[in-house]
Amino acid sequence: MLSEATLESVVLVKGTVIARPHGQQNPKMATGEIEVQASHSQILNPCKKLPFEIKDVVKKSESLRMQYRYLDLRSSQLQYNLRLRSSMAMRMREYLCNQHGFVDVETPTLFKRTPGGAKEFVVPTQEHGKFYSLPQSPQQFKQLLMVGGLDRYFQIARCYRDEGSRPDRQPEFTQVDIEMSFVDQAGIRSLIEGLLRYSWPKEKGSLPDPFPIMTYAEAMSSYGCDKPDTRFQMKITDVTSVFSAAQLGFVQEILNKPRGCVKAIHIPEGAKYLKRKDLDSMTKIIKDQYKQDVMPLVLKSDGSWRFLQKLISDELKKDLTDAMGAKAEDLILLAAGDHDRVCTALGKLRLDVACRLEECGVSLRSPTDYNFLWVVDFPLFLPKEDNAQELESTHHPFTAPNPEDMDLLYTEPEKVRSQHYDLVLNGCEIGGGSIRIHNADLQRWVLEHVLKEDANVLSHLLEALESGAPPHGGIALGLDRLTAIITGAPSIRDVIAFPKSFRGRDLMSNAPDFVSDEVLQLYHIKVRCPDSGN
Amino acid sequence: MLSEATLESVVLVKGTVIARPHGQQNPKMATGEIEVQASHSQILNPCKKLPFEIKDVVKKSESLRMQYRYLDLRSSQLQYNLRLRSSMAMRMREYLCNQHGFVDVETPTLFKRTPGGAKEFVVPTQEHGKFYSLPQSPQQFKQLLMVGGLDRYFQIARCYRDEGSRPDRQPEFTQVDIEMSFVDQAGIRSLIEGLLRYSWPKEKGSLPDPFPIMTYAEAMSSYGCDKPDTRFQMKITDVTSVFSAAQLGFVQEILNKPRGCVKAIHIPEGAKYLKRKDLDSMTKIIKDQYKQDVMPLVLKSDGSWRFLQKLISDELKKDLTDAMGAKAEDLILLAAGDHDRVCTALGKLRLDVACRLEECGVSLRSPTDYNFLWVVDFPLFLPKEDNAQELESTHHPFTAPNPEDMDLLYTEPEKVRSQHYDLVLNGCEIGGGSIRIHNADLQRWVLEHVLKEDANVLSHLLEALESGAPPHGGIALGLDRLTAIITGAPSIRDVIAFPKSFRGRDLMSNAPDFVSDEVLQLYHIKVRCPDSGN
Repeated sequence: MLSEATLESVVLVKGTVIARPHGQQNPKMATGEIEVQASHSQILNPCKKLPFEIKDVVKKSESLRMQYRYLDLRSSQLQYNLRLRSSMAMRMREYLCNQHGFVDVETPTLFKRTPGGAKEFVVPTQEHGKFYSLPQSPQQFKQLLMVGGLDRYFQIARCYRDEGSRPDRQPEFTQVDIEMSFVDQAGIRSLIEGLLRYSWPKEKGSLPDPFPIMTYAEAMSSYGCDKPDTRFQMKITDVTSVFSAAQLGFVQEILNKPRGCVKAIHIPEGAKYLKRKDLDSMTKIIKDQYKQDVMPLVLKSDGSWRFLQKLISDELKKDLTDAMGAKAEDLILLAAGDHDRVCTALGKLRLDVACRLEECGVSLRSPTDYNFLWVVDFPLFLPKEDNAQELESTHHPFTAPNPEDMDLLYTEPEKVRSQHYDLVLNGCEIGGGSIRIHNADLQRWVLEHVLKEDANVLSHLLEALESGAPPHGGIALGLDRLTAIITGAPSIRDVIAFPKSFRGRDLMSNAPDFVSDEVLQLYHIKVRCPDSGN
Repeated sequence: MLSEATLESVVLVKGTVIARPHGQQNPKMATGEIEVQASHSQILNPCKKLPFEIKDVVKKSESLRMQYRYLDLRSSQLQYNLRLRSSMAMRMREYLCNQHGFVDVETPTLFKRTPGGAKEFVVPTQEHGKFYSLPQSPQQFKQLLMVGGLDRYFQIARCYRDEGSRPDRQPEFTQVDIEMSFVDQAGIRSLIEGLLRYSWPKEKGSLPDPFPIMTYAEAMSSYGCDKPDTRFQMKITDVTSVFSAAQLGFVQEILNKPRGCVKAIHIPEGAKYLKRKDLDSMTKIIKDQYKQDVMPLVLKSDGSWRFLQKLISDELKKDLTDAMGAKAEDLILLAAGDHDRVCTALGKLRLDVACRLEECGVSLRSPTDYNFLWVVDFPLFLPKEDNAQELESTHHPFTAPNPEDMDLLYTEPEKVRSQHYDLVLNGCEIGGGSIRIHNADLQRWVLEHVLKEDANVLSHLLEALESGAPPHGGIALGLDRLTAIITGAPSIRDVIAFPKSFRGRDLMSNAPDFVSDEVLQLYHIKVRCPDSGN
């Protein structure tokens, strides 16, 4: 009977557990030494023909796998990912709740729309014309809990963000959300390092103690981004002084501008792997994206240079080679211009080059590397993208300024550093948080005088700060991204049981879908005519 | 400085911990034996005048408390409730995850609308005319997880139900959601009893092992409802035989009808506390609500009867008194008519009388009573309310029939008992679940032939059942209600950090609220004109 059952059928076998005959043991299996001598068997549920075999599931297109997610879930990879995610979350809870006195508090997901809160889903209600909003994070609630005397709060919280179609984003995602009273930046860092160390899967090795810390300024100038991938070198080096001594006309013009500089990345043996065609296409992408020229310099095996041969004197060549520590067959990527733009361009190129080298078989980053890094001292405000004369919060308006920069807040707010911190793992931001403003006057000043916002919409928060709010701070970790990196999953979709496609669709049930006009009437809404806007 | 600080200000005091002077110790406080000899103090955040003092918070109106929820949260009662909720949830996780191999899986809350799923909030998307729906429970997902080989699933899951304004309901609430493969009803019961025993707060005493079980039929006939409050007696007694022997004309007429009966509740010493006025107003409510007359009989202290004096012979009086075991000053509530209606009416009256007696100071139910009860053997289908010729699922269409009644499914489906079970605590349903249908043909039969529904809308589930679905079952516990009962909270709002008012409003932030037309345009919707329906 069993031999005739289709693959993946569910069977019941009763019998006696006996040792496997000698020579048939399989030490690689947990049950490899035993077998069951069946006395009764029964097919509980036969399996009809499947759209694909479970063992082949990884080879199938992702849309087919998502349509038959319940089959995909049987694959050993997804079983591993989801079970690891569950046990990591459980360990985190043990650490927070049992070992450190945190209280797991559930906060509402049907809330009021954040002023200017783009990307927030709205939820119509039976009250005419009124909507809830699905919040992007429990930010306001966690601060109110501190005011309410729940001095150590955590929640593994569902959050919502409507980003339309962005690859590897999900409309709903999960945050390990933490807030505590009477804490400083160092306190949060040590809590989170302890949390990660405690919940880290044993088979993934141990984590450093403490995690390294880097300022935002250093991250930008050495890695060209605020989430440096520190698993490999090829850092951005400032060679301005080398060029400034050389008095080259066209470079000098750049250096005379404020924040003008010359920077370079050194890629050992880069010339071996990256051909001119590769370099041209990579620098073209950078030029298109950042309006920044990047000049590749190749040290030939005879010590002479390819590219820029004539423009640069032998002396400058030698100085540059010395400054970068370059050897034959190495590659140097050189850029001159505005400091931030040069850094951002070289930072992007650094990552592109790393990927390209790995495609060529160079071993740069190992799958067992887990490089955590705290990035600190962000600017509290940044110029608005659409109007550089006005400032907006780098993160959110509740972030406290660095006490050392307090005076600048009233004179040159753009120079104020914040008490925000990001946690970076292998070049991905996996968490961020800050010490918050607990003083109502300061909060009001930031809202009204720096951000020019209407403080009234946050009157309940301001009132709360006036009601004996303790100093407090917190952080949120992205559980999906963290689990994806730990399990080596190519996408966060591989650590979520029922993910949406990159267009936000559930391919199994075909959500979202049309609903009846009867339902829309109940919620006092109607669908606009396409295109007309009405 | 400190003596001038306002109440509820946040202060920092540095100093040396010393023993309290003799005679000033307070053994009732955890820190009652020590004090701090201050060397430095500082006001970290002064508190402005509060709308009420924290110690007076319980006396304030609930709407004021909800408007200033962050102050309300400081009350010792809410602190206790939320901390107990957190630690109970943590113990549940330990039991499920660490001790019984369950996997915590997060399921989507942006999903497809359930066919005919009233009470589901819709969420407009940027896809023209298409909506997600906020599901009332992860029912489909938990079954798909079983098909996907996650054989022991749990989740403390946020669920949504749009009930407009119903007292003590919340538009979002929390379920302890559980599903497992290869399990029967007894397996689920013993798992849940173990779960509750493990997570039960020590100070609340111990729980029975096992919990009592009652059939739906017994619950309905003895308590007149499917969630009996077994903390007190006053059960419904069948006295049909007593009356049928008496051959009273007007009773006989009722008894000649199918399911005609006479039933009674016996309230010891009821005559002491319930006056004629009380009884009249209570029976009037029942009459209005259930169209059922209820006759109060009072045994006077001299053994004679008040009410119905003349209608009933002395012999019948004696038989009835004997059957009920009634004594002087007792009260008997008598009803004749259709079995179900009589039971429902007397069941409601039983609860009303209990409340009334307690108001009079009779000790009926103690706050330390925790009476759990399993109710089983529900009917699988019930006649539709608006059309008694058609059947609908008593719970949901995925509930498996009792194997003993399998044949009836194809002949008299209304007689089939289900494998559904409810868990009742002190007369409140705090959980429910079932063994599910795992056979696709059976599921299709139920959908198409019994419920007359379009099975295509559930094609993904039917396909999943055909793909080697193991037999499975599960349960969901209402965490809000459970915590409210354990903490003795009058409402689930007292065990939720930021509850909505009974109209679904957040009184602190004033949600729900209007949103801009720009936002509505993004989601291709517009608000209808009031009244016109357009």
